[in-house]
Parts: sequence; C-alpha cells; structure tokens
Amino acid sequence: MKICYFDDSRLGVVENGVVKDITDVLYGMPAYRPPLPRFDPLIAALPKLLTTMREAAATATGRAIEDVKFLSPVANPGKVVAAPVNYLAHLDETIADPKTFSRAHVIRIQESGLFLKATSSIVGVSDGVALRFPDRRNDHEIELVVVIGKSGSDITEAGALEHVAGYTLGLDMTLRGPEERSFRKSIDSYTVLGPWLVTADEFGDPSDIGISLAVNGEVRQKARTKDLILSVPQLIAFASSFYTLEPGDILMTGTPEGVGPVHAGDVLRASVERVATVEVTIRSP
Amino acid sequence: MKICYFDDSRLGVVENGVVKDITDVLYGMPAYRPPLPRFDPLIAALPKLLTTMREAAATATGRAIEDVKFLSPVANPGKVVAAPVNYLAHLDETIADPKTFSRAHVIRIQESGLFLKATSSIVGVSDGVALRFPDRRNDHEIELVVVIGKSGSDITEAGALEHVAGYTLGLDMTLRGPEERSFRKSIDSYTVLGPWLVTADEFGDPSDIGISLAVNGEVRQKARTKDLILSVPQLIAFASSFYTLEPGDILMTGTPEGVGPVHAGDVLRASVERVATVEVTIRSP
Repeated sequence: MKICYFDDSRLGVVENGVVKDITDVLYGMPAYRPPLPRFDPLIAALPKLLTTMREAAATATGRAIEDVKFLSPVANPGKVVAAPVNYLAHLDETIADPKTFSRAHVIRIQESGLFLKATSSIVGVSDGVALRFPDRRNDHEIELVVVIGKSGSDITEAGALEHVAGYTLGLDMTLRGPEERSFRKSIDSYTVLGPWLVTADEFGDPSDIGISLAVNGEVRQKARTKDLILSVPQLIAFASSFYTLEPGDILMTGTPEGVGPVHAGDVLRASVERVATVEVTIRSP
Repeated sequence: MKICYFDDSRLGVVENGVVKDITDVLYGMPAYRPPLPRFDPLIAALPKLLTTMREAAATATGRAIEDVKFLSPVANPGKVVAAPVNYLAHLDETIADPKTFSRAHVIRIQESGLFLKATSSIVGVSDGVALRFPDRRNDHEIELVVVIGKSGSDITEAGALEHVAGYTLGLDMTLRGPEERSFRKSIDSYTVLGPWLVTADEFGDPSDIGISLAVNGEVRQKARTKDLILSVPQLIAFASSFYTLEPGDILMTGTPEGVGPVHAGDVLRASVERVATVEVTIRSP
C-alpha cells in the first residue's frame, strides 16, 4: 500500500495514479494530551490499521496525483538518522576533491558512525527546497529512505527488516562547508521525503533498488542499493547499537556518487524504484 | 515558577521543596490526533497557562521533592541542539589531549557549528545514565540548558531572550571516539535534563550563572557562563540562522573544562545556579 499525507494534512492511499482520501481513519485513532508520545502514532498503529485503511480507500473519493500537494509521508519522526558516505564510488569522489569535502568528514562509515538531521528540516516533495545560503555550495543527494515501524534496540542484522514499516524517497540536501553534518544538513526544507510511504510488504527486498537524480534534465546520480557499503539491515543494526529506534524514525541510507550543486530555479527529477519519480524545485531563500 | 514532570508523567510545580501536583491542567489542554504537532504543546502554551498553573498549585496536594521521580521537564522537544567546545578553557584542554579528543572535533564553534542529540536520548535526573559501551571512555559534561518558548528563524541577538521559555540543568553525556558527535552523544539516557524547568521570568539573566559537577564527592567541573565563547543570545541567533527553533526545542550551551570519565556506580552531583543541585547515578548497560 502507498500511504501519504496531502494538502492540509489529509491522509491518503495512492492507487493507480489516484489519491484516495481516508482522513476519517485518523478520527478513529486515540487523541493525546501532553505529554505526547515520542514516536509516530500512525506508523506505530499501521499493522493494525492496514485493513481499515484498505477498506476506507475502496469507497473513498479520489483525486489525480497531479492535483494534490504531497507533504512528508511521516508526520512525526522522533529522529532522522542518516548515513554518511555509504557508497564506495561516492567515497572515491569525496577523497578526490578535498576542497569541497572536508578531510574530517571523509572517513569510513564504520568509524564516522551515523548522523542526525533535525526533524524541523523535513518537507514533502511538493514543498521544494528553499536555499538558505545561496552563496555557498548546496548539493543534491538522492537516497532510499527506510521508515522504522517497530521499536528496537540492539537489533540483529537477521531481524532488522522486521522493524521496517516501509520505504520512501529522500533528498538529503547538503550545505558544504566545515560545520558538522548535523548542522549543515538540518536547514529548514533540507530533508525532502515522499511522495508516499510504500509499505514493506508491497516494497519487498531493499537490497537492489535503483535510485537516480537528474538536474534540469541531466542525469547526475544513478546507482543501485546493492552498492551500499552498509546494507539496510546493517544500518538498522548499527543505528540501534547506539540508540533505540522508534516507529516513525527515518533512516536515510546514504547517497551515491554524482553529488553536485543546485541553484534557485533548478528542477530535480528524483527517482527511487518501487516508490516513485518526482520533481522537486529549488528556490531562493 | 519551577515546572516538572514526575512519577508517571504527572505535571508539577515546585515550591519550597515540595512538588505540587497540577496534572489536571493537562486535561484542560487540547487533545491531538495524528499528525501531532512538531513542537512541545505545553511549552508553547506556557505564557497563557502560567496563571492557571499558579492557581492550581495554590490548592494542590504536595509531596517532598525527595519522594518523587523527576522525568525530563520537557516532554516533547522537536530537537536537542548542543554547542561543542564553547568554553575557552575546555578548548585548551581538548587541544592538549589529542588522544582523547579527535583532531577533527576540535575546531572553533563558529566553524564547527552546533550539533544535534537524539530526543530519544533524553531522560530525567532520577533515571540516571546507563553506560552503553563501558569499555570505551564515557565522559560527564555539565551544562546550562535553554528551553525555547517561541518559534523563530533568523532571530537577532538583541531579541533572542524573548524566545526563551526557561532554563534547566543538563548533562551532555559523551562517548569518546572517532564518530560524529550526533552519534556518540545520542545514546539512550545520554541527555539528562532537570529536575525542573525554571521559567525565564524567575531565572533572569543567563550571562553569569555558576555551574559545577562533582564525581563521588570530588569537584571536576566548575565554571560560570560569563566564560562562554558564544553567549546564550549568540547561540540562539547562530542556531536559528540555520533552522527554525520551535517551542520545546532544547539548547545545550556547552560544557566547561574538567570533563572526565565516569564508571558504573559513580554518583554525579551536578549543579546549575538558580536551577538546582541534583544527584545522578551512573549504572551498567
């Protein structure tokens, strides 16, 4: 199933190019007063809700996907975990260009660990990216994104995929410079997710997924997840060896070679196999 | 006013060593269904709620502070922003010990920027810290902590303190090693906050606050916030030049010189002037 938030936070299921409005499903969920849960309640409830959502979609009114504004398909991630340099060919390009990629930031992922992006940086694909420091270099980074479905700590590689609710497409937009990744990559709108979440049962095996990105029609990044240094199960095991993963947590799996600068007015065409191909616009601050 | 969460997420006001139970105030707040707000609704509502809370406290039952378990005084921070090496004397000690403090991590804060800690790492002072990698070095770092009260982006230094809801005490517990700060410092229980939030009106000027930390009775860290490299208003301006700060966001202002290792069984005595002096226990994984 493909699940999305759209327009003014309406809940939708996407089928055959049509967004079915199933917002009423949210009204059947528990309401919370402070303190709120520190995880995403909709993602946590998905295993129980899928049948209800399917039934609601069967009778719901629909709109063409071209006519809706797609918000982030996960509304309340507790954290956004991201993998630095996780494709060998991207590691090579960073080593070859020390002027752009600070020496301190180019070490192997097993040593550098994972980093965080602010949840306040998340937008949907229809929002586009607002450059914040247009005089500095701002790069596109296309990634396969994992959405955690089940809480876990010290998760084994073998059991890792049982903790996945689904997958989506992500842009880990990046300001280049000396600052720590968790600062440079947390600018408002620098984490683009969407257009929808594809549930794990529909998505299947994440180990050989094609991803690509073109800027104004020119292909810049093109790779397959079989070339990840740490695979999806290895990333989940690695992350959860440091902290508990919660439903709704976002795991960005890293970007392949071909990263490069974007400018206001550019249109990115981003694609993750089995998720979608979308256009994302870059605009001025 | 001193505001806390205690025991099983009850809301309290602390007066003269007594915690007054004002949990009923939460029942007067709006309830949310997914998508939940991405900020802390109680902190956002504080300006309107303070009178109600004061009145509720006047007639509430009370318990001695020794008899309650203090949780994090902010339940739903959207992000935890923290300042690396923000006291000159701490910068000096990191430069003097390259074996412990990776070269890549010892650059001035204006260049390194701020970093993020996972919200899943937050605990209250009564929870204590569970060491995750006891064979590696784990350090104490005492800090003055700012709680953002009002949303803002590109906040000026002059207007920064208007965005502060209050202050609390924080421990930025730190695993040493080569990984990025946002990974090493995001281990479950490695962000200790509390015991309560002191509202900005009661706390007053944050520019010369004494902070200290002792391990098993021996003083290790002792400093005043007048020696911060970036002051509280400067940190708020710096952070918000990259991303929007939201009500409930946590800003850890950096730790002074004297950081050092802790071991299971250690008792930390941490103090932030005008907030509290508390004991925090270190335990095995």
